[in-house]
Amino acid sequence: MITIAPFEQADWPLVWDIIAPVFRAGETYSYAPDITEAEARRLWVEVPAATYVAKDEDGAVLGTYFLKPNQPGLGSHVCNCGYIVGDNARGKGVATLMCEHSQQEGTRLGFRAMQFNFVVSTNEGAVRLWQKLGFAIVGTIPGAFRHAKLGFVDAFVMYKLLEA
Amino acid sequence: MITIAPFEQADWPLVWDIIAPVFRAGETYSYAPDITEAEARRLWVEVPAATYVAKDEDGAVLGTYFLKPNQPGLGSHVCNCGYIVGDNARGKGVATLMCEHSQQEGTRLGFRAMQFNFVVSTNEGAVRLWQKLGFAIVGTIPGAFRHAKLGFVDAFVMYKLLEA
Repeated sequence: MITIAPFEQADWPLVWDIIAPVFRAGETYSYAPDITEAEARRLWVEVPAATYVAKDEDGAVLGTYFLKPNQPGLGSHVCNCGYIVGDNARGKGVATLMCEHSQQEGTRLGFRAMQFNFVVSTNEGAVRLWQKLGFAIVGTIPGAFRHAKLGFVDAFVMYKLLEA
Repeated sequence: MITIAPFEQADWPLVWDIIAPVFRAGETYSYAPDITEAEARRLWVEVPAATYVAKDEDGAVLGTYFLKPNQPGLGSHVCNCGYIVGDNARGKGVATLMCEHSQQEGTRLGFRAMQFNFVVSTNEGAVRLWQKLGFAIVGTIPGAFRHAKLGFVDAFVMYKLLEA
């Protein structure tokens, strides 16, 4: 049984355990691979409007995501999320659960749509999953991501209108 | 004779005079129309890597723009700019001069490309000008901008590879 709940301060060490390797790898997120824990915490927990944690029945952290307005003021009706699933939790549908949860939360918080600004094109599993969940590729930025192994690769802008 | 030079602290009152009406109008920038002067200064001057001011031979401010990395870390080779021309300085080619200047500065600072994330589709003069200057529309975000007069309108992502 996987549950998704708002981030609590005590969750941070376990959240950092699963997001740090993803940032360090430099294959899917644009944050500097040598980002400090303090800066990561600021970006993942403090800047966003809300952060959530997916746990199994034993309280182990399986994944985490944040939700925030994608623009200030006159663009603030579109939200943005970032999701990370722990390496040990793959194949359990955690990303799907988190993305569906985030759409409900986005709607509840009054957002009309959700936009991903920077989906790395070589992250094919993620691209396919977002498409399956109703997101469309509405933009392609040539060579926008400097992949740690592949060099410059395209990034996609993806978008979905949320259900009222 | 129009000159473009790095922003200096003494420029702020004149810069604010030309950017405030644009933010207040809510037709081209996503910043909240009631943004405070302090927050505007933070976003236009403090957050960006550099800010520039275009002046005429009498020292009157005609326009201003900022330049910054569009993403952190692995996306930091693409820069982002925002430009504003004063209402009294339209039709003098100030936007063109600033955009060309920003491309040179971007190249000089080591950026490979320039991206605009949020060009309001109804700002047709700007869209045409950026296209004339070599930018392509690489994405369209449906209804991403809440225009003060027109309601929800699309926003474009525009992109140009800079010359080395």
